[in-house]
Amino acid sequence: MKVKDIGEQGLLERLQRFCPAEIIGDDAAVISSSPEKSLVVTTDMLVDGVHFSDATTSPEDVGWRSTAANLSDLAAMGAKPLGITVALGLPGEVPVEWVERLYKGMDECLKLHQTPIVGGDVCRSPVITVSITAFGEVEPNQTIYRNTAQVGDAIAITGFHGASRAGLELLIHPEIGQNLSDRDRQFLIRSHQRPKPRLDVLPILQEILSSDPSQPHKRTAVRPYDTLHPTPYTPHPISGMDSSDGLADAIVQICEMSGVGARIDRDRIPIPPALSNLVTAEQAIEWALYGGEDFELVLCLPQQPAEALIEHLGEGAAIIGEITAESAIVLGDRTNKNPDRILNRDRGFQHF
Amino acid sequence: MKVKDIGEQGLLERLQRFCPAEIIGDDAAVISSSPEKSLVVTTDMLVDGVHFSDATTSPEDVGWRSTAANLSDLAAMGAKPLGITVALGLPGEVPVEWVERLYKGMDECLKLHQTPIVGGDVCRSPVITVSITAFGEVEPNQTIYRNTAQVGDAIAITGFHGASRAGLELLIHPEIGQNLSDRDRQFLIRSHQRPKPRLDVLPILQEILSSDPSQPHKRTAVRPYDTLHPTPYTPHPISGMDSSDGLADAIVQICEMSGVGARIDRDRIPIPPALSNLVTAEQAIEWALYGGEDFELVLCLPQQPAEALIEHLGEGAAIIGEITAESAIVLGDRTNKNPDRILNRDRGFQHF
Repeated sequence: MKVKDIGEQGLLERLQRFCPAEIIGDDAAVISSSPEKSLVVTTDMLVDGVHFSDATTSPEDVGWRSTAANLSDLAAMGAKPLGITVALGLPGEVPVEWVERLYKGMDECLKLHQTPIVGGDVCRSPVITVSITAFGEVEPNQTIYRNTAQVGDAIAITGFHGASRAGLELLIHPEIGQNLSDRDRQFLIRSHQRPKPRLDVLPILQEILSSDPSQPHKRTAVRPYDTLHPTPYTPHPISGMDSSDGLADAIVQICEMSGVGARIDRDRIPIPPALSNLVTAEQAIEWALYGGEDFELVLCLPQQPAEALIEHLGEGAAIIGEITAESAIVLGDRTNKNPDRILNRDRGFQHF
Repeated sequence: MKVKDIGEQGLLERLQRFCPAEIIGDDAAVISSSPEKSLVVTTDMLVDGVHFSDATTSPEDVGWRSTAANLSDLAAMGAKPLGITVALGLPGEVPVEWVERLYKGMDECLKLHQTPIVGGDVCRSPVITVSITAFGEVEPNQTIYRNTAQVGDAIAITGFHGASRAGLELLIHPEIGQNLSDRDRQFLIRSHQRPKPRLDVLPILQEILSSDPSQPHKRTAVRPYDTLHPTPYTPHPISGMDSSDGLADAIVQICEMSGVGARIDRDRIPIPPALSNLVTAEQAIEWALYGGEDFELVLCLPQQPAEALIEHLGEGAAIIGEITAESAIVLGDRTNKNPDRILNRDRGFQHF
């Protein structure tokens, strides 16, 4: 049996027996090393020809995107970044300038979040490989887990979806963009090349929650991830993850891990206006749900703070549905133009 | 200009401008996230055909060795491991069993140190690539830096050197081992396949130091690594690193970074007895100095605690010399059989 026969998911399931059961299945691992702060760690590997190529991605953009993906995983846990390490595998033929431009892109993204590169490794490899590990810290009662969504929660997303995939298509097939304004074209391409980890959402979220004294102790959150170094139990009201593998994937994962369902309102999914000059509404919804790499946060929280959050975040942010007691995740249409549809992960990424 | 034109060292120098200056050049990065504990992080990438091959290394051994190398970097900073993350790049053709055996080897090494795998990533790659990041914690005043060796310090090493290189040679050229007993052959091969991170040394070291009340505040250590989150200043008496890139490399790096020299006594370098039935004394010393991957600790500390440490550790551990005010690192011979020799890093590893 080969790796390609069982795919990424199959392989991960087999490897999970080597990891503490509590620690699997979130955007990043949480280790409570002290009662006040938990350490949050996430890692990603990117390979030339698999995750990026010179055709669509400059070295600066590879650096930015790989960094942004890791910082987004920290944001998805509610964690403030402390630093990243970078391990590089390089063929001897790679121009030094390529590597410096890669680091320049990482640096540009990191600077916006005051995050240093704190270590690394370079080694010879037949293929350019970039492996980043990001670590951050979060107060235990502010950690955002995937498995704590509750029936009645609003499902809030922090920005437009579908833009990254549209930008990728424009890079591969520039001719499809002839009806777009320069500004729209640039916006979409930029969304793909320079996604923004939504670390900016965290302080807003905390301010909203702390100004609502009924919230912090209202919920009974399941927190199975802290058993390595158990900390005093404090319930926390927010569940969520990022939409790096697609909006549909994020919603399905949150629901599966929380043992709940959801009803999503198709018309409330925020599609960037530029997409209407590029593809049909049907295609735009597909890209929003399954395109991936928009790196927004998908958050489940009570209606009132959800509304306050959306108001703060402005354009693109939206409440797109609600957590339900059903087991299915239903994509509905208030206009009755489209029949209800069941969302699942089948169209998410599988990397083999 | 290509990566191969400037080599690993040249590339690292160019990339260091993207990192905080204080954080470069030790076994691992130290981030003082609180006054009581510093976070220590280290990362390594291993590539099939470059760092390991099926000819000399089983998947279990690849797993063990890659894990041991990272834990050794933590030990070299005085840090207790908290966890590791594993990112894997895999061709689709790799047998699932290979990956499971890799994890089994990692798990065997980690279990001895109660350290969990806390996260990871698997992705498609044309070449098997294993990227491990290990993180640990250390009390700020117990951190072992490379740049704090002081004139008069004893140079203590925690075990035999040369065994790992001898084991590698025996795996590649089994015929050279015909004069060895089975036990000696196994000892040497095992030293290469299953090196032990010397985390066991840390509590012994702390016990020795804490029982000597004159030590903790006697030294004026330079601690430039903690400026990200400055912590109250506490001098610490020990400098050191691990000998993963060779004993000579470790001594030279400590001396260069501390602005001191050293005199090493050739006859006090502990060579495993088995080597005398394999190679000449001259060759054995070369392997001990430049063979690499013995993963012992090279520690510079005052004579008295150094002697107590060596006594505790037993066979293989030795004081091999002394830190001097000269700029050179001299390998001397008390028996006058060999002329003095100057050690430098030229024979250390360069990975391109």
